Amino acid sequence: MFNENLDSIVDGFASNYASPEIFFTDPDRHFPNRDAIIGILADLRHLMFPRYFGDETPTGSDPRYFIGETLIRIEDSLRRELREALLFRDGDTMDAAAIDARVEEVCSTFLTKLPELHRVLLKDVQAAFDGDPAAQSKEEIIFSYPGFFAVFVYRIAHELYVQKVPLIPRIMTEYAHGRTGVDINSGATIGEYFFIDHATGVVIGETTTIGDHVKIYQGVTLGALSTRAGQQLSGVKRHPTIEDNVTIYSNASVLGGETVVGEGTVIAGGAFVTESIPANSRVSVKGVEINVRQPRKSPASWEL
Amino acid sequence: MFNENLDSIVDGFASNYASPEIFFTDPDRHFPNRDAIIGILADLRHLMFPRYFGDETPTGSDPRYFIGETLIRIEDSLRRELREALLFRDGDTMDAAAIDARVEEVCSTFLTKLPELHRVLLKDVQAAFDGDPAAQSKEEIIFSYPGFFAVFVYRIAHELYVQKVPLIPRIMTEYAHGRTGVDINSGATIGEYFFIDHATGVVIGETTTIGDHVKIYQGVTLGALSTRAGQQLSGVKRHPTIEDNVTIYSNASVLGGETVVGEGTVIAGGAFVTESIPANSRVSVKGVEINVRQPRKSPASWEL
Amino acid sequence: MFNENLDSIVDGFASNYASPEIFFTDPDRHFPNRDAIIGILADLRHLMFPRYFGDETPTGSDPRYFIGETLIRIEDSLRRELREALLFRDGDTMDAAAIDARVEEVCSTFLTKLPELHRVLLKDVQAAFDGDPAAQSKEEIIFSYPGFFAVFVYRIAHELYVQKVPLIPRIMTEYAHGRTGVDINSGATIGEYFFIDHATGVVIGETTTIGDHVKIYQGVTLGALSTRAGQQLSGVKRHPTIEDNVTIYSNASVLGGETVVGEGTVIAGGAFVTESIPANSRVSVKGVEINVRQPRKSPASWEL
Amino acid sequence: MFNENLDSIVDGFASNYASPEIFFTDPDRHFPNRDAIIGILADLRHLMFPRYFGDETPTGSDPRYFIGETLIRIEDSLRRELREALLFRDGDTMDAAAIDARVEEVCSTFLTKLPELHRVLLKDVQAAFDGDPAAQSKEEIIFSYPGFFAVFVYRIAHELYVQKVPLIPRIMTEYAHGRTGVDINSGATIGEYFFIDHATGVVIGETTTIGDHVKIYQGVTLGALSTRAGQQLSGVKRHPTIEDNVTIYSNASVLGGETVVGEGTVIAGGAFVTESIPANSRVSVKGVEINVRQPRKSPASWEL
Amino acid sequence: MFNENLDSIVDGFASNYASPEIFFTDPDRHFPNRDAIIGILADLRHLMFPRYFGDETPTGSDPRYFIGETLIRIEDSLRRELREALLFRDGDTMDAAAIDARVEEVCSTFLTKLPELHRVLLKDVQAAFDGDPAAQSKEEIIFSYPGFFAVFVYRIAHELYVQKVPLIPRIMTEYAHGRTGVDINSGATIGEYFFIDHATGVVIGETTTIGDHVKIYQGVTLGALSTRAGQQLSGVKRHPTIEDNVTIYSNASVLGGETVVGEGTVIAGGAFVTESIPANSRVSVKGVEINVRQPRKSPASWEL
Amino acid sequence: MFNENLDSIVDGFASNYASPEIFFTDPDRHFPNRDAIIGILADLRHLMFPRYFGDETPTGSDPRYFIGETLIRIEDSLRRELREALLFRDGDTMDAAAIDARVEEVCSTFLTKLPELHRVLLKDVQAAFDGDPAAQSKEEIIFSYPGFFAVFVYRIAHELYVQKVPLIPRIMTEYAHGRTGVDINSGATIGEYFFIDHATGVVIGETTTIGDHVKIYQGVTLGALSTRAGQQLSGVKRHPTIEDNVTIYSNASVLGGETVVGEGTVIAGGAFVTESIPANSRVSVKGVEINVRQPRKSPASWEL
Repeated sequence: MFNENLDSIVDGFASNYASPEIFFTDPDRHFPNRDAIIGILADLRHLMFPRYFGDETPTGSDPRYFIGETLIRIEDSLRRELREALLFRDGDTMDAAAIDARVEEVCSTFLTKLPELHRVLLKDVQAAFDGDPAAQSKEEIIFSYPGFFAVFVYRIAHELYVQKVPLIPRIMTEYAHGRTGVDINSGATIGEYFFIDHATGVVIGETTTIGDHVKIYQGVTLGALSTRAGQQLSGVKRHPTIEDNVTIYSNASVLGGETVVGEGTVIAGGAFVTESIPANSRVSVKGVEINVRQPRKSPASWEL
Repeated sequence: MFNENLDSIVDGFASNYASPEIFFTDPDRHFPNRDAIIGILADLRHLMFPRYFGDETPTGSDPRYFIGETLIRIEDSLRRELREALLFRDGDTMDAAAIDARVEEVCSTFLTKLPELHRVLLKDVQAAFDGDPAAQSKEEIIFSYPGFFAVFVYRIAHELYVQKVPLIPRIMTEYAHGRTGVDINSGATIGEYFFIDHATGVVIGETTTIGDHVKIYQGVTLGALSTRAGQQLSGVKRHPTIEDNVTIYSNASVLGGETVVGEGTVIAGGAFVTESIPANSRVSVKGVEINVRQPRKSPASWEL
Repeated sequence: MFNENLDSIVDGFASNYASPEIFFTDPDRHFPNRDAIIGILADLRHLMFPRYFGDETPTGSDPRYFIGETLIRIEDSLRRELREALLFRDGDTMDAAAIDARVEEVCSTFLTKLPELHRVLLKDVQAAFDGDPAAQSKEEIIFSYPGFFAVFVYRIAHELYVQKVPLIPRIMTEYAHGRTGVDINSGATIGEYFFIDHATGVVIGETTTIGDHVKIYQGVTLGALSTRAGQQLSGVKRHPTIEDNVTIYSNASVLGGETVVGEGTVIAGGAFVTESIPANSRVSVKGVEINVRQPRKSPASWEL
Repeated sequence: MFNENLDSIVDGFASNYASPEIFFTDPDRHFPNRDAIIGILADLRHLMFPRYFGDETPTGSDPRYFIGETLIRIEDSLRRELREALLFRDGDTMDAAAIDARVEEVCSTFLTKLPELHRVLLKDVQAAFDGDPAAQSKEEIIFSYPGFFAVFVYRIAHELYVQKVPLIPRIMTEYAHGRTGVDINSGATIGEYFFIDHATGVVIGETTTIGDHVKIYQGVTLGALSTRAGQQLSGVKRHPTIEDNVTIYSNASVLGGETVVGEGTVIAGGAFVTESIPANSRVSVKGVEINVRQPRKSPASWEL
Repeated sequence: MFNENLDSIVDGFASNYASPEIFFTDPDRHFPNRDAIIGILADLRHLMFPRYFGDETPTGSDPRYFIGETLIRIEDSLRRELREALLFRDGDTMDAAAIDARVEEVCSTFLTKLPELHRVLLKDVQAAFDGDPAAQSKEEIIFSYPGFFAVFVYRIAHELYVQKVPLIPRIMTEYAHGRTGVDINSGATIGEYFFIDHATGVVIGETTTIGDHVKIYQGVTLGALSTRAGQQLSGVKRHPTIEDNVTIYSNASVLGGETVVGEGTVIAGGAFVTESIPANSRVSVKGVEINVRQPRKSPASWEL
Repeated sequence: MFNENLDSIVDGFASNYASPEIFFTDPDRHFPNRDAIIGILADLRHLMFPRYFGDETPTGSDPRYFIGETLIRIEDSLRRELREALLFRDGDTMDAAAIDARVEEVCSTFLTKLPELHRVLLKDVQAAFDGDPAAQSKEEIIFSYPGFFAVFVYRIAHELYVQKVPLIPRIMTEYAHGRTGVDINSGATIGEYFFIDHATGVVIGETTTIGDHVKIYQGVTLGALSTRAGQQLSGVKRHPTIEDNVTIYSNASVLGGETVVGEGTVIAGGAFVTESIPANSRVSVKGVEINVRQPRKSPASWEL
């Protein structure tokens, strides 16, 4: 039965391919390779936290060979993916030499910042350890906390975002998103000693600014009030500013580009904040009403 | 120490195997192969968005060979999994010829609908692009937006659900659920130009109906008011109806089979809606109370 | 350009390696192998639900060979990982013989409990089937429900947690967390016939106690009121007690170590509970306000 | 350029597909799965030589669980491949029930012989150890001698050959051939305590008979004198008979179905034997002539 | 101990890298990708013998989609590897446009010849079936005969050799060599209906010419008399000419560029031929001498 | 049918396990890991010929990081396998500290020799290029010549053999043997500028000594005259001595521990040499006899 229809189904798809998103036969457009980008993240993680992930445990006494070789491999792969990403976006307007120069510049800037990024991440580990009574050691956090993983990926992606690299920061943060349920847009600005506890269902929008010593819990959204204007809002600050030492409990939402949560404030779980909050405030939620009903006869199932 | 106990542990399991769910030695019951079903999704994605995923970039100028061969492979694999799924559920009541006829029918109907499904998905891409200022291009959405991936999988699974295929639609949507945190039951009915932003923690129940041009955010539940009656509710409409042009912000819940959200309505984040809402309403949430407390002495940690 | 800087970047990392978390050249510290631990979970799942996962379908009429051999493989791998985990934490204070004795003890206790655990899990399957009208069969639940998978992993990890095994319970539950969005700390105590519907964005903290016949939905947090005292709270009961026959709907939070939700209580979606609730209560949420605004001119996009 | 020609190349292949060997669209013909057959060999090797190959080292004190489970897996896979192989050859002449009965019979006979086969193989190990001064231990032979591997595969394949199983014996011995350069046709009859030293370039034809305590070296051919009559010779004895205690050195050939090498005989390397040899003979080769030429001037290269 | 020496070992290698073969930092030199080339061979085999190798069995009734898509994939991959190979050899002397033009030309010519090559290979299958009494079917030959596999790879590689493609033909034939022990240089010219029985230890040199209906056995060398003049002999005919209907038995050698084996000749196993042989000759070998020695006392081991 | 017999088959194997080669439940005996040893070879090849194998092409300008890191990884893995191998053989007679000391000593000596080994291998490349007119470049030899690969593996294994390392040298050379058909025992002593052309079916025995500038062809055996005395011959020189500048053509055999082939000698293909040959000899073979028979009628098949 199928074979009678095959040709017409094929025709249907072939005509759909006229859609501009389907660049089937355009040999000049390539996507950066997602697996290669995930490989760069894996190498960076291995570089920053050697012997945590994977069996290959180099035990030589001089770590410099390990560091140098890993950096060279990262650079090699990053350079290739940067070139694809820039060609994809700018291939019509920049020539090959200009793109190569840009690749070198981005790569060099990025790599130079890595040791500092490493130090910032070690502070994030400290924040998680100080903030979570269930953590038995800092090693446990590095090895297994999804919130820390999401922040690790964000900090790397952010360095590429600020250099206006297309596609790659998105691929990085969506990878972390898929593995942790934490969606931090690489455009967000996040200070030191940052911790996301339980790390699932968190959204931090592109133009969010977060200070130092901030702690947020699962389900927190730092979002836009409305994006009804769509692409017209591109580049406009749409997400809130969170100052130093703020804590936001589970499932709270803070929305809007003009919303500022002042330093030292604590926002209760489930709160829905769309206006600025003064410093050192305690934001709580009302509205729970309790009704006692008659005891159920049999506790053996939910169906009674 | 263990070896002394081994025989008794083995006995314990062997007697548990009497439970009807453990069909250990029943050669007539097989599950459809999850990897094969994921492979079908991958092939469909490759067919609809060639050169986005995977390296194998066919560049011949005539896409018809690529389309036809991919369809044949999809059909071959789908047919095999459909047969297993139908045998698993209906093997006691249908004979082999009847099952084969059903497989052919489902397969043919499904494949015939694919080009139209493709067009609908391209509209979903447009919806995401129009609705997200952070999206730099439509390609970025196709390549990396988890919300779009979840909708892609849902639309395919739904075509099998409406043909009453067992197990396979569930395997498909749970696969998307695991990768994106978006749980769309394949039974839901969803209109065109649909967008889920940030795509994590979203639940859309089996009997939900959604119109055209609807946009929802992370954490939104379109659920049942109560499922205490369990399997007795099977087939009953338990989830809401969302009309055209509705927007539902983050972490809002709309519950109940008789709940209708009228067209053009906007529901604020965190809202908990259990009754119908007239068209063009704006549903907001109250209940945030702000308390200012004394400044903390030292901002250096959360512990003060 | 990069190569000029390579040596200084290498130096930056090499000096970061002085941080105590980076045990680069300490040959006595190893992490348990995450892949091996996931392999143990896979073997346990295969043992408890043979022929559900993977193709290797043993069809001999006597299941005892299959059970025995699988148990021996599990024990072999578990023993190896337990040794690494105990050495990592206790290598400075326990000698090799003491660690080996502890490994034997943990292993033997764990394996002896498995048949009982199996029976408890079959009750969880029943709970899911009774509680979800969308479930077509119990097999579907075992095969594809993420909520059931998270509970399966939790119940195994919990048996190791109660024996004070370090790292491995965390690795297990974070694995389930990453795949399902359900974060159940292995320290929680959970009764029989437990069901998490939709299973995404759920957090159940370390010192939570849950009775029998409890059902919770997506987005529910059973958390701490505040963890500002950080590591000082380690071991203190910080999470709530949920008694028998309680149902908690989506996105509700119940917080605090002294909070007790009495038996038979139903908590509405989105509720934020920080104080104890008497038995058989119905907790609902207020605060939704509906405004009707003018109809929009064109339904064709979100931008009007 | 290619695309202009594509359709005609496609047509060329499509018309070639009319050749009877290309059963492209014949759904009733399948090959047994080569990977599955190699898997059966791997399981048999693991069963006979546990802990030699692969990491999965079961260390329980009772090996019966390991043996039983491995046998069940072997039987399950073998039964599936036997069915495919018999259907491929006999599907036109035997009905499904007859094929299933044959599968059971072959399977049962084969498995029953395995322990005896195991004992014979341990004698082959002894033969290799006694015969090779370079062998440091019997374990080394089991683990790494290609000659022993080829004999191991031959002995298994032979048990299927004698039951007239099509295709599978060939797939087995060609697998060993590819890995070792030793081509033993599964039809050959080979006695106990057999050793092939160095194991490369050896050919032992289908109707060869070899006694006990025979040793052969690399490059030895036990072949047919001529196969010019092709398929007419099928089933006729075309290859030699080698009696007990014979040694055949490297690159010697013994050809012909009527050729009998009497017991205790030693055949020198490079000999070409096409007639029977009495017992206890020593067969040597003549014909080397030595010429001394003038010394070369410079030893530094081959070109002078 | 090692670490004290590490720096000096590193220095040793770093200075070895000055050798011209070690183009460590030359970004303009790349090797073609061996895995990709093996993939092209696998695709060609799948195209010519569909459903023989691998599970993916397309069963649509129209094979044209399968053929077309496979060809497009082959062409895409081949074009990429051709470019690398030409750049590696000719990058200094040809510009990019010239290389691209050459790639197109080679690719188009190669693909156009494939259907004819397919027909020739089907004749080789017939030759093997006619020539080997142990072959039960032609399918068995296609599926498992290493001699046929080596010829298949040779015929493909030869088409590239005649177009003067560097490296790729060698990679192809060495791949077959490693799997079969048959080393056919891609430069050899081989007629139709060709069969290598047992297929191990066969060498066919670069300038060999072989007519139609030739059959050779394991261990046959068609080689050069001497290559002492090394690279000076490059391009000179150094290997023999074998006319139609010749049979060469096992381990025979025919050497020299001026050696012609006339049509219809049969060369015995082990023969060493360095001069031309008239047509229809029978070449036999002398020199076997048989000595009978005393019977050995005990047959139980080789050591007496 | 099978299941009735299962228990008795299991019993058969269980009693076979009493054989001393089956150390099923002896937890103190482990084999070195074959995959790890192959990994060491791959790393060494990558170190010596960077950018030839695998995609990971490090392009940093300073190769020292790459070299150092690769060496550290090789050392780490080698040390682990050495320990297993020594424990396997000497675990009964050496204590842990003695084994560790031996591991360090072997490792350090081995690594220190690597740069020199690298230089020797580059001379072998030159030998192959000078000696093979079909070689288009030295890169082609490194990348694809099986003879060079076998020599590469031999030279590495030999360094471990001379330090009396058990098992690992054998695993290495058998790996090369399986891939190339060249069986060089790691105990052989081979001089510089060595080339094996065509590389299949070559055997070089344990006590062979080969000088500089030697070239041998496919099928050559440098073997023992007889090994009937078996293990009593262990350690005795049983294989020949080949002096400088000797060439041995295809399928020739040189046998015996007292056989010396004097420098500059050329041995013809197929020769069988069991006595010493003076320097600068030319060894040729006699014995080919040519018979002309009547022309065959039809050349169309082999059957006439």
